[in-house]
Order: sequence, then C-alpha cells, then structure tokens
Amino acid sequence: MSGSVFGTLFKISTWGESHGKALGVVIDGCPSGIYLSENDFIKDMSRRKPGNKSVSTKRNESDKVVILSCVFEGKTTGAPLSLLVYNEDHISRDYENIKDVFRPGHADYTYYEKYGIRDYRGGGRSSGRETLTRVAAGVVAKKILEYLDINVFAYTNSISDIFVSNDNFDIKECSKNPLFMPDAENSKKAMEYITNISKDGDSVGGTIKCIIKNLPKGLGQPVFDKLDADLAKAIFSIGAVKGFEIGLGFNSSTKKGSQNNDIFYTDETGEICKKTNNSGGILGGISDGDDIVLNIAIKPTPSISIPQETVTTKKESTIIKVSGRHDPVIVPRAVVVVEAMVSITLVDHIFMNMVSKIENISSFYKNSK
Amino acid sequence: MSGSVFGTLFKISTWGESHGKALGVVIDGCPSGIYLSENDFIKDMSRRKPGNKSVSTKRNESDKVVILSCVFEGKTTGAPLSLLVYNEDHISRDYENIKDVFRPGHADYTYYEKYGIRDYRGGGRSSGRETLTRVAAGVVAKKILEYLDINVFAYTNSISDIFVSNDNFDIKECSKNPLFMPDAENSKKAMEYITNISKDGDSVGGTIKCIIKNLPKGLGQPVFDKLDADLAKAIFSIGAVKGFEIGLGFNSSTKKGSQNNDIFYTDETGEICKKTNNSGGILGGISDGDDIVLNIAIKPTPSISIPQETVTTKKESTIIKVSGRHDPVIVPRAVVVVEAMVSITLVDHIFMNMVSKIENISSFYKNSK
Amino acid sequence: MSGSVFGTLFKISTWGESHGKALGVVIDGCPSGIYLSENDFIKDMSRRKPGNKSVSTKRNESDKVVILSCVFEGKTTGAPLSLLVYNEDHISRDYENIKDVFRPGHADYTYYEKYGIRDYRGGGRSSGRETLTRVAAGVVAKKILEYLDINVFAYTNSISDIFVSNDNFDIKECSKNPLFMPDAENSKKAMEYITNISKDGDSVGGTIKCIIKNLPKGLGQPVFDKLDADLAKAIFSIGAVKGFEIGLGFNSSTKKGSQNNDIFYTDETGEICKKTNNSGGILGGISDGDDIVLNIAIKPTPSISIPQETVTTKKESTIIKVSGRHDPVIVPRAVVVVEAMVSITLVDHIFMNMVSKIENISSFYKNSK
Amino acid sequence: MSGSVFGTLFKISTWGESHGKALGVVIDGCPSGIYLSENDFIKDMSRRKPGNKSVSTKRNESDKVVILSCVFEGKTTGAPLSLLVYNEDHISRDYENIKDVFRPGHADYTYYEKYGIRDYRGGGRSSGRETLTRVAAGVVAKKILEYLDINVFAYTNSISDIFVSNDNFDIKECSKNPLFMPDAENSKKAMEYITNISKDGDSVGGTIKCIIKNLPKGLGQPVFDKLDADLAKAIFSIGAVKGFEIGLGFNSSTKKGSQNNDIFYTDETGEICKKTNNSGGILGGISDGDDIVLNIAIKPTPSISIPQETVTTKKESTIIKVSGRHDPVIVPRAVVVVEAMVSITLVDHIFMNMVSKIENISSFYKNSK
Repeated sequence: MSGSVFGTLFKISTWGESHGKALGVVIDGCPSGIYLSENDFIKDMSRRKPGNKSVSTKRNESDKVVILSCVFEGKTTGAPLSLLVYNEDHISRDYENIKDVFRPGHADYTYYEKYGIRDYRGGGRSSGRETLTRVAAGVVAKKILEYLDINVFAYTNSISDIFVSNDNFDIKECSKNPLFMPDAENSKKAMEYITNISKDGDSVGGTIKCIIKNLPKGLGQPVFDKLDADLAKAIFSIGAVKGFEIGLGFNSSTKKGSQNNDIFYTDETGEICKKTNNSGGILGGISDGDDIVLNIAIKPTPSISIPQETVTTKKESTIIKVSGRHDPVIVPRAVVVVEAMVSITLVDHIFMNMVSKIENISSFYKNSK
Repeated sequence: MSGSVFGTLFKISTWGESHGKALGVVIDGCPSGIYLSENDFIKDMSRRKPGNKSVSTKRNESDKVVILSCVFEGKTTGAPLSLLVYNEDHISRDYENIKDVFRPGHADYTYYEKYGIRDYRGGGRSSGRETLTRVAAGVVAKKILEYLDINVFAYTNSISDIFVSNDNFDIKECSKNPLFMPDAENSKKAMEYITNISKDGDSVGGTIKCIIKNLPKGLGQPVFDKLDADLAKAIFSIGAVKGFEIGLGFNSSTKKGSQNNDIFYTDETGEICKKTNNSGGILGGISDGDDIVLNIAIKPTPSISIPQETVTTKKESTIIKVSGRHDPVIVPRAVVVVEAMVSITLVDHIFMNMVSKIENISSFYKNSK
Repeated sequence: MSGSVFGTLFKISTWGESHGKALGVVIDGCPSGIYLSENDFIKDMSRRKPGNKSVSTKRNESDKVVILSCVFEGKTTGAPLSLLVYNEDHISRDYENIKDVFRPGHADYTYYEKYGIRDYRGGGRSSGRETLTRVAAGVVAKKILEYLDINVFAYTNSISDIFVSNDNFDIKECSKNPLFMPDAENSKKAMEYITNISKDGDSVGGTIKCIIKNLPKGLGQPVFDKLDADLAKAIFSIGAVKGFEIGLGFNSSTKKGSQNNDIFYTDETGEICKKTNNSGGILGGISDGDDIVLNIAIKPTPSISIPQETVTTKKESTIIKVSGRHDPVIVPRAVVVVEAMVSITLVDHIFMNMVSKIENISSFYKNSK
Repeated sequence: MSGSVFGTLFKISTWGESHGKALGVVIDGCPSGIYLSENDFIKDMSRRKPGNKSVSTKRNESDKVVILSCVFEGKTTGAPLSLLVYNEDHISRDYENIKDVFRPGHADYTYYEKYGIRDYRGGGRSSGRETLTRVAAGVVAKKILEYLDINVFAYTNSISDIFVSNDNFDIKECSKNPLFMPDAENSKKAMEYITNISKDGDSVGGTIKCIIKNLPKGLGQPVFDKLDADLAKAIFSIGAVKGFEIGLGFNSSTKKGSQNNDIFYTDETGEICKKTNNSGGILGGISDGDDIVLNIAIKPTPSISIPQETVTTKKESTIIKVSGRHDPVIVPRAVVVVEAMVSITLVDHIFMNMVSKIENISSFYKNSK
C-alpha cells in the first residue's frame, strides 16, 4: 500500500492501525528553529478526542503525542520529526462476529479485494483513528503558519439539514458546544436530533466550513498543483468526505459571469482587493489575498447498530449489527482534521512559492552570505 | 512555476501559452505496444473545439496534434511521448487595452503578484487553451483504458439552473446538441438561455457529470492517495471548477447512516455487489467495482463584454470591457477535459495497484521468464 | 530537512538521532502477504552491530527491531510498516568538549551552517547509527527479493591497500572473520593492520564489492532513472562513500571499445548471454540478466583519538581529541548497509518495471478478474 | 518508460529519439525574471557538437534550440519552458543490417527485453543524441547559477591512460584542442592515440573532471538526498559513465583518518575554511563552501567498425560491423553534458535549501509584504 505519504517539501508519512501497538507520523522537511514540545499537541488532540457522551465514542483515548526525534533543547533541528501515539487499550475485543463480514459503508470489502487480507480489528488502517496522525502533523504545520500570522479555522456548519444561520453566527460558540458549531440555537437543535437518531442506533452527516485568513498572495503552482486542487485532494483524503467546494462552489454554476466575477479595487492602504469573495480567495489556482473559504460534506458514520444485510467473505448473506463504540456523527471530530490537512497543504505551498522569482532566490543567497 | 507535472507512473508534463508558438505535453510512463496515430486525437480535440457559434469562441482552432516521439512503426516504444499543437493564429492582436489591467474573475492579478511578470496576451499560461494538452494526454490514457474495457464518459448535467431530467435522459442526445447534454428538451431550453445572456455580453456556468464504468475493484492507495482524493485534485486542477462531489456528495451530509450505507449482496454470477451506489463506487478510497459517479461545478466564463470596474497594475481604477472571442459558457467544452483528467488519473492508479500483493508481483516475474 | 525519504513505489522514510529516544523507518508501499516477524531482523541487525573488539565500537547496541504496524497474523497487510529501534543507552555522556567544536571530517560544521542548530550528541542525525534504519528496511526489501530468487551479497574487498586476492577468494570466509572479507589470509593481514593503527588512535578506509545475482532482465527506467544511476544514488547516500563503480568502472576508461564490449551469444538453454561482464550487468541503464557488480570506496572513520586542530563555533582555533567509542574502520559494518540500500533500490525497480508493456498490464487485470 | 523526468523543484522532462522528428525538454519550475533567448544555447550546444573530424561524428548537426513557451518580452514568465531541437537529417538511412541484430555494448538488447519493441534507427531513445536535451536544460540551469555567481566547469582529464599532468595544467588550453583537455602536450598525445585506434575502427574511453566553484555552504538534504548522492545519480544517468568519485574518491579508501580528515581553520576574512579538500567540498552530504571536485569514468564508444560476434532477435549467431558516423571517443563531447547535469542538480538543491530554517521562511514572507 503506497499512498500514506503526503506533500512535496513538507512531507508527512503516516502509519498505524486502530488496534495495533501505536500510530504515528514522520515529518520530513520540518525547518529548524521551531519551538516544539509534547504539550503543543494536547489542544488539537483533545479537540479530536471524544468529548461528549452524546456525540462521540466512549473509548478512553488519552492520545498523548510522543516526540521521538528532531527536537533538541526545545527546538527543531531540521531532522525528520517522528511523532507517535500509543494505542492504550489495543488489547482486542472479540472481533469474531465481524471477522468474515463486510460492514456496509466501510472499507472492509475494498481492502479485502485489494490486499487479499484485512486487519478486521476495528477497521485497521481504514479506521477513523488514522486521522490522529494527521492532527499531530497539523499541529506542527500550524506552528509554522503562526510564524507567518496565517490562521486556519474550521467549524461545523450543518448537522443533517440543521445549518448555522447567519443571524446567530458567533465564533465563540464553537468552544461552548460539543459540535464545534458557531450557533448556540442550532447547535442545541442539532444535539437533540443526534440524541434521537442515536437512540435508534442510527447516525447522521453534516458539513464543515474552513476559513484561512491572512494567507500571502501568490501561493499555488499552476497548472496542476493549483492551491485549490491540492486542498481538494487534502480534504478528499479524509475518510468520510463526499463533497468539496471553494467560494461559491456549486452555487457559482447557476450564476452569470457578471454576478460571479469579483470586482477589484484599491483600498485606502493601497492594497488591491476584491469587493466580493465569490472566488473563495483563489484565482487561477493562486491565492488572491482574500480569505480562502472551503465547504466540505461529511457522510453519516457508517457504523450503526441497526441490523443491516450484508455478505461474508464466503459470499453468503448475513445480518450485521455493528456494536461497540461508534460516534453517531463524526462531523465535530473531523473539524480539527480538516484544519490539519489544510494547514499541512498550506505549508507545502508556502515553501514551494519561495522559488517563483529569480530575484527572490538571488537576494536570499546574497543576504545569507 | 512548478506544478505543470501530473501523475506518478503515468506522468504528464504540459507547457504552452494561448498566444505562444505552440502548446504541448510530454507523457513519461506510456507503456510500449500501444497502437497510436495522430488521427486518434481528432475526435476528442474536436469535442473540445468550438463547434457551435452560439456557445463557443469563433477562433479558428484546427488544433491538430503532432506526435514528435515514442511512436515507431505505428506503436508506442515505451519512450516519452511528446505531443504538440501549434497556435496557428498566434500573431497577437492588439492587447494594449488589457496589458496593464486586471480582468475580474481571471488569474491576471494573481499571476502578476506571484511572478512579477505576466503574459497578457489572452491569459498566457492561465488560458483555457491550456486544456487542449490535457485532452491530448487524455486520448492516450483512454487508449490504455480501452485495453481494460474501462469506459469514462462525461456530459453536461446543467446550464445555470436548467438540469437534465431523469425522464428525458438519453445518452445519445449528447452528440446531437452543442451542449453535450443528454436531454433534448432541456438542452434546447439551455441553448435559448445562453443565446439570451450572450446577447447581453454575459456568461453562465453549469455542472458536469462523469461516469466511469467497468473499473476494476481495488484501485486507490490509502490513505492520502485515495482514488477519490486524486480524482478531486485532477478535477480541481481544471481552471473553472468550484465544486466536486462523489456519489451522493453534499446530499450524503443530510442522510442517516441507515439511508446512506449501501447494502452488499451476492449476485447470480457470484459477484459481490451493492444494492445502491450512494458511495459513488469508492469505499475507503478504493474502487468497489460499481460505477464511479462524479459531479462537478463550473463557474461562468469570467470573460464578459459587459463593462466592469477594475484596477490597473498602477493600482488605478478603470473600466474594462473584455472584447474578443469568448464562450458564453465553457461547460460543454470542459466535458472532454473532465474525461481526460479522469482517464489520466485512472491510468496512474491502474499502474500503482499492480504491486499491492506479493503473490501478484511474484507470479508476474515467474511468468515473464 | 527534507531528504530522508527514498524510493518511488517502495518508499522509506527514516528518522532518528544517535542519542535521541529511538530511530526508525516507515515503509510505504510494502505489498500485502509477506510473512514477517521481528526475528527476521536479527541476522542483519547483528551483522551491522559491533562484533569484534578490534574493529568496532564497544557500544552495547542490542538494536532490537520492533514492528509497530502493518503485520497482522504474521503477514503484511499492505499498510505502512513502521519499524523502530530504541536507543537503550541514550542517556548522554558529557558532550561539553565537542559541543562548540567542529570535528574534522564530520558533518558538524555543515549541519551548523545549514540549520543554525546542531544536535552535538554523537553526531545526531549525521551519525552512522542512522544506517540501522536502512538495514531494517533492507531486511524487508530482501524478503521481497526472496520471492523472486534474487540474491544480493556484499563483502569487504579491501582494507587500506590490502585487497582480497582472486586466488584466495572464498565466500565462506566472510562469516568467519570480523571484516566480512572472503579471504582468510588477507583478512588476517588487514586485522593486524587495523590493530596497529588503532593503537595509534587512527582509522582506515577500504572498499566493498556488491554482487546481485539472478536479477530479471529489463529493470531500470531510461533515461534518468537508470538502474545504475539509482544504485549510484543509493550507495552515495551512505555517509562515508567517496567512490562508486559498476562493472569495469574506472578501468573501462583505459580500454578500447573492442576490449570493453561484451560479446553476445546464445547458450545451450536458448538464453542470450554475454561472454564477458565488463558492463557489470547493466546496458543503457537496464539490467541485462548478468550479475550486477558494484565497487564502493569507503573513507576512513573521521573520529580518531589523535589530537587534531580545528575551530569552534566562535571561529577560534582549538585542538580536539575525539574520545569515546569509535570504529577504527567502518567498512565491515557498512557491508550490510550496502546490501540494504541495493535491495531497497531493486525492489522499487522491480515494481516500476511491471508497467513497461501494455500487454502485461492488460493480462494482469484480465487474470485478476 | 517512466524515468525521463529529473528533479524535484527544477524538474526537467526530456523526450526524443535520434532519428525521430525532434528532441526536446520541458522545464517545470524555472523561476520568472530570467533573461533568455535562443542565442543563449548556441555556445553549449556547439560544445556538444562534433567539432573535429578526428574525434567526432561527421553528422551535420546544427542543433538549433527553439524556445516554444515561457519566454515573453525576453524574460521567463515562470511558466513551463519547452525547448526543442529538430532532427534535420532524420530521413533514416538503411538500417536493415542492424534491425534484427543486438550491437555489443549497446542498449539494443536490454530495450528489446524490456519493451518488446525497439526503435532500431541509430539507438532511438538510448542514443547519445538524447544528451542534447540535457545540455539545453543545462544552459537554463547555468543561467540561474550565474545569478548566484556559481561556476561549474568540466574538462577531459584523461584519454585512455594519457592523463592531464599537474605541471602542464592550463585551463585555457581546453578551448584550444578538440578534446577539451587543459594540457597542450598530453592533448596532442591523446589526439595521436585516437587517430591511430580510429584507423583500426576502434574506440577509447577516458575520464572527466568537474569543478564547482563558489557554491554556497549548506546545500544538500540529509540523509538520502545528499548533494553527493544526487550528483552521483545525475552523472550516472549519462549513458557511458561507469565510475564516479568525489574528492579523494577511491584513494580515500587507502588513507588513514589522520591523513584524510581536512583540518578546519579561520582565514583572515573570518571565514571557516579547510586546509585541504580531501572531502571534495561535501561533508555529511552538505556543501562545506570548498570547491566540489568530481571525477568521472567514461567507457569507450561501443560503436566500432571492427567486426564483432553477436546474436539476432531470433537468437542466431551473426557478425556485426557497425558502420556510419561514430565518435572514436565520446569523452570530449560528454564534458558539457556533465556540466549540464551538475548544474541542473545544483539548481534543485539551491531551491530546496531555502526552506531549511524557519527564520529564513518567516523573513522571506515578511519582506515580500
């Protein structure tokens, strides 16, 4: 299985299964001189953790990140950075009941077809637990973004058809409800909805918005490695994502050019700006200085305790009832994963953009002499 | 500018500007033994060409593909394949009026910010004309897919808010109307709409559906190089794309797990199948044997002849009226570009998947002795 | 620091410093179905270990490889394989004396210039201890080569100017002397020489030969990713290597074409062979079915206890006497590292070669249906 | 055939066969703002061309480089740069006599084994003519090096066993003799030798030295993408190379550590320097500020007109006498190819090194605001 390496200059290589000894990530291309400690990971790792009984798995995941290399006397040395999280309760339960059965909506069947073998303990490599290595790498990426005052922020924009309303929008609400939803009223409604379907053993999906602020102009490499193209890949590499939009997204398809084009003007500081941001901060694959605005669709958790028809590895019909710890909704836990993947992608583009002009390269080396 | 290379094993490197001497693509990784001639490119190149006065630019683009290498005695040798298309009428018109002006909705401004220099003749590298090299490479990819009986087919699913209806759906209609729309009635309505906004000098967007049939199970590399993630990047690398969905897409976000999960069963031939295809043919980033179904949002052409406010390179306000040959809608011409990018992506995954199991590798070399 | 990732389809990402908590490697692209256990690593890890007081460091390195992922029920699943070795005695000695001093022949100075920070404890990332992760990955590569009956074997061919003689050559001698030298007589001489210079606190270099047997014809990707080019990179990525030859190597430069060309003939089994092997098993960057023969120059260990002039980070002159555990010769320990890097490189080429012909790709997918 | 793409950020993709329509290279990652015209290629292209009847093929190669993209108003725009050279006399001679015969020392046999098809006209993709695209890309790389005052210079150091002597060394001699040999006396001897063996229809090899001056300290990415490792690959990707050394090379293997280590000191300008340069300008894979010194072995031209035994594609014995235009020695023509590959490699490392320290990245973006 190739495919667990991401990035060109800021390159992450992740590994680990949900019920193996540990999961981890190696970052090759982390610059030297960054202050980094194991405590830096706590906040985002806990945002990814199950925090609320109603919406998240009951698994006791302390998910402490261990730094195994690269950091010396508190700072990164430029060497590859190896981060590891142990699976504390990886002594496997009895998986006999799902061992030979393909769970609907899961990757059991496709992994089995591709590899002829499957780590059936909780999904193995295809488990959502894989995302914690993304969050760990994302913390390092965010550290780098901090040096450039770039801010990446994501939140739950809808659960089922309950959307954040513009009128109620309050970013501070995100930290006050388990759904990371910036809307006190609708987060309550969404919580009630989740509680109800959860009782039935069912699950639900939702959408996530992600905003990038203060990104330098000029990021993105035409024509294939456009900033939006690489963000699309980054986001779609997250397990449950089924849709991705930038700016107006699908709504732009019903607009006229005269409605959709953002008008340029020069503001009082002499900066060229756009009157609207239908483009979502990217023109021709290159950041235009405006906020980048992403919208992401997350499917409902495939693990439900409602009995479902399916087949076995011997191709026989059977009924499966997925028991165990499962989130009725994974949207709120995916919020920080989205931020991580976006941040990792941005760092790579920040690095690549430095060699766009010969005058920049030339002055870099003249100054460093 | 890095970023014009795409793919890992089937690697394409494109080049060329709208008003330079030529555009082209080099394919590194084309297998030997494929029958290929310059005639093979005619069909798809003409699908991309302006075919109808109402919907496409009047530019006389013959767009003949020249094969410069790799093909010997009618077959590919395994060497890099260089394809070239001359810009026949590249003697530039007077571009003085847009030379120092940033066209709204275009990449003029972002290229200028990134590179400090801009080929202002018709968009240069950011022109839609760049896509003809994708189509050329796509023809080669499709040739390879033919050997495996894989079929990639795209069509216009909507223009503005005029959608193909399920009742009218007839795939044969695509070749009968200039919009590549499989619906006789609604393509007429859409044509009327386009004619109207075109008179105003305005433009409009739409959506494209793409279906992949008969794809082998098991394609896609977890966890970052998922098949859907790589398709998302491929599609979002096309200039005007603003949204991408697979399977139910954004609709999955409002579903319950019990609605969204596709139930497995064994059909009469002993094949494991799904009763529905909400997943869009991909589970856990790996093809599940079902049709892959993609949905793509295309923004309205940014070039409109309605006067628009904007600024100059000197940051002064001005009014621009983009004259010249411009499509009021680029959706129908993008259809074949979508097919091309999808096909190129599939070939790479077909190649990469061959080394998933040691038994396959082992028997490959034992058989070839 | 990017640069710690190697390979395209069989991709290894290494990490760790000599005095950090651990070192490790993640292999992305290991096929499923390979029997693998922690015991498989013992043999090669111990070949790399100091085995003889006279020639190797006294550091107590048990170097047990821990498998953290990918292996399930004794076989690889296709997931990324994470291997880790703890630094058991990583409680650092007093490094005050070298903290601010650049050791001659070491990478202290260049790391400091590049990163502005240096892990001065025993070399950090530039330590020879880094090679154990290569050996660990090499064990996995060799496992794959076993399935194809390919054999990679290296040995010490010279220590200083004491060379293995053709008359004495006996491959079985390698395991009988601490130098891995297939010559009983000259290995004794070399041991005496090492003992002598070791008493003076000095060190010495040597050369390594590596032979690849039974490699399939056709491996290597023209024109840049030639098999010899990738082997050259693989070998030169090992710290102390200063020279690399294939086949006749530098001797070919003094030959005439009529002497150097290998004559083809058809042997009794109908196989096309060469009468000589001046090419070293590679023609035009592609394996020709003959043995691949590599010759590698290793410089003397830079760590010597003889006092040497040098400068400090403050650019002041000083005298350094490198104390601690240091090999008077690293050649014998590098033998298994050479085998590892060669094996890793071969696996990647074996994978890439599978998509050279369309007929192979086509029959692969038809057979797997 | 993958493998014709080289580099990470400065990425070249070459294509073309000796008797096809043309050969060319696409450079993806060329920065904007570089003054470039077709005249810039003349000098190096003519250095690669046959200049002297005694040592080079009589083929009339004008080898004019055409710029097809990227350059606008005299400067590079940052877009991919496509360079093309037409094969002027590509109307193929009668190749019937070698069509089904494997020439000894050539890649005919291995290409045939790998691809099952072979462009038998003059070597096809494996022809030495492929190197002109490297030289063309090298010219662009050298342009970039000029901005940083870095100088790459190569010369013929030996023909057969006739070596440049230290006493006679005069760099100005290189342009005065057809061998690019900086030694008036020995170049004459070598010319005589070549004339003699040429009469017999034989050929001869030699060695090339390459010196890089004024390279910034800190280039090279540990641990696999060491500067020397990437140079080794770059050089070994050139067809006829059989050996590569850096610094003392194989001689270091017979030295003691006390002899081989280069002593650091601080010179009068306050710069840290080395008293000797046995390392060849690289320590731990990173440039140390000293001259980089490479030594390269080139085998004799395999094409000789002396009759040689060989086999046919039908495995029958035959005699081949390679007629046509062939250099009795390719060393002098390879000199500029070596410079090109070295320059291309350096540019990539210059780019990659810019993101080694967070403070550099941070100040880059703060300054560009």
